[in-house]
Amino acid sequence: MAPRAVAGPEIERLIQLLAKLPGLGPRSARRAALALVKRREQLMEPLSAALARAVETVRVCSECGNVDSCDPCTICTDSKRDASVIVVVEDVSDLWALERAEAVNARYHVLGGTLSALDGIGPEELNIDGLVRRACDPLVTEVIIAVNATVEGQTTAHYLTDQLRDAGVAVSRLAHGVPVGGELDYLDEGTLSAAIRQRRPF
Amino acid sequence: MAPRAVAGPEIERLIQLLAKLPGLGPRSARRAALALVKRREQLMEPLSAALARAVETVRVCSECGNVDSCDPCTICTDSKRDASVIVVVEDVSDLWALERAEAVNARYHVLGGTLSALDGIGPEELNIDGLVRRACDPLVTEVIIAVNATVEGQTTAHYLTDQLRDAGVAVSRLAHGVPVGGELDYLDEGTLSAAIRQRRPF
Ligand SMILES: [Zn+2]
Ligand SMILES: [Zn+2]
Repeated sequence: MAPRAVAGPEIERLIQLLAKLPGLGPRSARRAALALVKRREQLMEPLSAALARAVETVRVCSECGNVDSCDPCTICTDSKRDASVIVVVEDVSDLWALERAEAVNARYHVLGGTLSALDGIGPEELNIDGLVRRACDPLVTEVIIAVNATVEGQTTAHYLTDQLRDAGVAVSRLAHGVPVGGELDYLDEGTLSAAIRQRRPF
Repeated sequence: MAPRAVAGPEIERLIQLLAKLPGLGPRSARRAALALVKRREQLMEPLSAALARAVETVRVCSECGNVDSCDPCTICTDSKRDASVIVVVEDVSDLWALERAEAVNARYHVLGGTLSALDGIGPEELNIDGLVRRACDPLVTEVIIAVNATVEGQTTAHYLTDQLRDAGVAVSRLAHGVPVGGELDYLDEGTLSAAIRQRRPF
């Protein structure tokens, strides 16, 4: 016997789709759907409008892989940014994190993941050709590889360094060390060793 | 200085609204927005359509407080249900839980919360008048009070019992006891005491 349809088909469909969002399971999707129904004017209608608008406008930047409502994206066309530096990230979420931190005022390049033999992700699956092409532009003098400090991230960083050898750019990577506010006795040995090795004069 | 606008205004708006859903904070709302953008055809477009459809169709049932795409709702007009029993719940999510469990084949009445002096929720804030009116229908012979086993729930149950005294219905409440599959040494003393007191012959 099929489980009894609990809510109307429109709400069931909404729950089913909400459950596909990262961070929401079937249970929290039901709670979210109910919150939407209860707060129709403050939440359901505005979210519906915002989603419809996003469907219409949001595009992936053909230059850097960022998402924005224009292509090339606002960052790629921002004349106040240093066009000589490209910051390579795995994912748009990393780009957002660096932007929130105002860590750098350059352009980006979104790889779309990392090399992973386990997940069958080779160089063709990532936006590496586009990076090499951009790095060959004489305007570009430095590529900062800002991938995660994971095994896959570091493997990818080494592969990129190789690919960029003939592009005439300096290739750099993020410093390892103690996170700001980090407590030493909560950090792993690799981080502590790196922080000692890469110590800076006071 | 205002924080740098990280994504375009359309995505920022989407993130802002997603962050208002229960279970999603600002960080997971960003991840959810990004998942939508990346899975435009499989996720963003269908969710946008489902939300628009829900905005159009979903209504609160004027009889029982359930949400559905018709009013009165499918449950209230379902002739295969026992019209002599009304199950009183705090919230639509409780109605859904009882329906998923196929615990009862009757009609419901959604209170919309519980009495709470702390939160300033008195009888006027809850859908109690509607319940008393429905209970006075000669067809109705029993009201099952299926509120949560919390202090507020039990306070509300006592208040409802009082209000229903002259309605000519039997008033019952859920049994307390050991949850099916529950392990005794994880249960609180109140539950264990209730399970012993309300023990059933084998
Ligand atoms: Zn771009
Ligand atoms: Zn109803």
